[in-house]
Amino acid sequence: MNKQRLEAFSDGVYAIVITLLILDVRIPQVQASALGAALIGMLPQIFTYVLSFFVVGLYWFSNHRVSHQVKKLDGTLIWLNLVWLLFVSVMPFPTSLLGRYPLQVIPITIYGADLILTNMTGLVITVYLKRYSELTEAPISSQTLWRLVPVYVISNGTYIIAIGISWIFPLGSYLLYALILGWLMVRYARITNPFQPGKAK
Amino acid sequence: MNKQRLEAFSDGVYAIVITLLILDVRIPQVQASALGAALIGMLPQIFTYVLSFFVVGLYWFSNHRVSHQVKKLDGTLIWLNLVWLLFVSVMPFPTSLLGRYPLQVIPITIYGADLILTNMTGLVITVYLKRYSELTEAPISSQTLWRLVPVYVISNGTYIIAIGISWIFPLGSYLLYALILGWLMVRYARITNPFQPGKAK
Amino acid sequence: MNKQRLEAFSDGVYAIVITLLILDVRIPQVQASALGAALIGMLPQIFTYVLSFFVVGLYWFSNHRVSHQVKKLDGTLIWLNLVWLLFVSVMPFPTSLLGRYPLQVIPITIYGADLILTNMTGLVITVYLKRYSELTEAPISSQTLWRLVPVYVISNGTYIIAIGISWIFPLGSYLLYALILGWLMVRYARITNPFQPGKAK
Amino acid sequence: MNKQRLEAFSDGVYAIVITLLILDVRIPQVQASALGAALIGMLPQIFTYVLSFFVVGLYWFSNHRVSHQVKKLDGTLIWLNLVWLLFVSVMPFPTSLLGRYPLQVIPITIYGADLILTNMTGLVITVYLKRYSELTEAPISSQTLWRLVPVYVISNGTYIIAIGISWIFPLGSYLLYALILGWLMVRYARITNPFQPGKAK
Repeated sequence: MNKQRLEAFSDGVYAIVITLLILDVRIPQVQASALGAALIGMLPQIFTYVLSFFVVGLYWFSNHRVSHQVKKLDGTLIWLNLVWLLFVSVMPFPTSLLGRYPLQVIPITIYGADLILTNMTGLVITVYLKRYSELTEAPISSQTLWRLVPVYVISNGTYIIAIGISWIFPLGSYLLYALILGWLMVRYARITNPFQPGKAK
Repeated sequence: MNKQRLEAFSDGVYAIVITLLILDVRIPQVQASALGAALIGMLPQIFTYVLSFFVVGLYWFSNHRVSHQVKKLDGTLIWLNLVWLLFVSVMPFPTSLLGRYPLQVIPITIYGADLILTNMTGLVITVYLKRYSELTEAPISSQTLWRLVPVYVISNGTYIIAIGISWIFPLGSYLLYALILGWLMVRYARITNPFQPGKAK
Repeated sequence: MNKQRLEAFSDGVYAIVITLLILDVRIPQVQASALGAALIGMLPQIFTYVLSFFVVGLYWFSNHRVSHQVKKLDGTLIWLNLVWLLFVSVMPFPTSLLGRYPLQVIPITIYGADLILTNMTGLVITVYLKRYSELTEAPISSQTLWRLVPVYVISNGTYIIAIGISWIFPLGSYLLYALILGWLMVRYARITNPFQPGKAK
Repeated sequence: MNKQRLEAFSDGVYAIVITLLILDVRIPQVQASALGAALIGMLPQIFTYVLSFFVVGLYWFSNHRVSHQVKKLDGTLIWLNLVWLLFVSVMPFPTSLLGRYPLQVIPITIYGADLILTNMTGLVITVYLKRYSELTEAPISSQTLWRLVPVYVISNGTYIIAIGISWIFPLGSYLLYALILGWLMVRYARITNPFQPGKAK
């Protein structure tokens, strides 16, 4: 299995998912005079759309960073990557659900669960690559792996808190999701420029 | 016709099909209080979604393995590949049908028929490549082809059995489809690592 | 403008159009007992689906053959290619229309008009490439161009006839569309193997 | 981050957006005898479809021209590109809105706002690339940047005028959008051939 073809396939899936998200933002079917109010009523849906857009963008970025370390593939890695793509491909469903039922416990939980599952699959892949170092360009050291742990603990921990507080303060769940997204985006913007720390952001 | 462009086109189709599957998993339109029950009622649909996701992933993997052997293309091979893509592209229809009418004979039959047709097209392409060995990197030996026969007999035979038992025990059909999928996935995970037999799975 | 990027973009559009076609083949919403009859009632729609699938496949093949001759791009060529992609992208609309209103004059006319417009854009691009020979790998001779004329006359002439007879014998229009498609597919299968005339088909 | 992979991802998004536009052009659900009138009633929707098709095509062209200058990526550039893709991905929504509510102030405003936001993101990226010249193949001179200013002033100024006149003469807004699109298309067709000024167009 050629690495480039897996990347092309994965990039395709990410590009499609990120673009399909808009299909669930249906235009309102109202009298022309009521259009303004109907659009304002869509704001929660538009917020979840933008959130999911950058979530998928972040996973794509993350997928690239993992893939960059890979030298050759084996079958298990391909299936693990497919599981990752599954959790990303599913994203339009919780996005749409959260847009349709804003501030509800169940959609917030499903959305957060998908975030956690996608996250954890990325971690599993990194652990797999560490173990089978003949698959990577350079062996992944234990330190590298341990340095990732706080990121996973903070992000997934916050997702779990977000799910928890949806019972009492659902707006807080949205804020936490957006906060972690923003933090990870800033973090990624910086990581790509280790040699120019002052520039990115 | 450039082989890379056919691969890019095929990869595109696979990536789109696998991602479009989620579009048919429509969110329920109910009162917020009834959302939990509505989502539980969607479990058969979610099962067929996940099944089809990995089925398409498997065909993509399989397509790559065939394509890997190809050195140059001719027109017939392009059309055969397009027939293969047709049966894959169709997948959202039986998936959606089976999700909407679970445990019914007709959807199970159509789903299984699509699996068999896709399978057989893959076999026809391999036979074609064996016959016109100037199209392949290395000639496909009769042994290689014969070694594939049991796989096709077992998988398609099981699909036919699954279709048959849908009349008396439709849940068994689902199990058989999932079983063959799991078996082929394990098989593929192994094939890519012939030199590391202990690792994949 | 890099030729490879235009090809990747065009391949993407073709792959998406060909895969989106299935989205318009909606599963029936009936009692489970009426499913068989409902699916049989969908046969005209399934026929137009398969027809359009191979039509798009054929245009993709055709686009590749034109693109293969191109050495460098200019802006006009990019816009001409985009017009070509427009007529291809539109295809789900007449397909869906013909599936919903089978054997009707208007859908048959719109479908045929799209085929003719796509066809003619391909011809315009070839004429443009002949005129600005610095854009092609090798100059396109007048003979090469003239040899294409009968193909365009026969295919577009037949499309016009198909549109015409839709007023009196609409089933004949379908047959003519399928006939031309089959003829062009056989022709393309052959063209790619000029040195092995006995093999393709 | 590999530039080619960002390009492939971006090309994918553009290809998908441009192709998805047709999905919002729903076929009419009427008696067969009323089909002609129903299709004529769809003309405003078809106009916005074609407009958006070329708008997305233009942004794709524009994205390529910016990307062509890039030598290496940093995280901020990737996020800026993603913001650009966001405003492009959103396009089916205002397109669909304008098709459904033709000649209305709100859809015309949202459509124009999306055009302006996409435009301005392209400008921000160019300014960013000028500032961090180590990211570009060749430093972007102040003159190059200043030469772009009139294009941005004219196009965005016209979009603002189009939004303004939608209150009194909405048809004029459509004309202005189409006019700017046509002007930019001719401009782009020319730019790619600086050495053959007489050919393009």
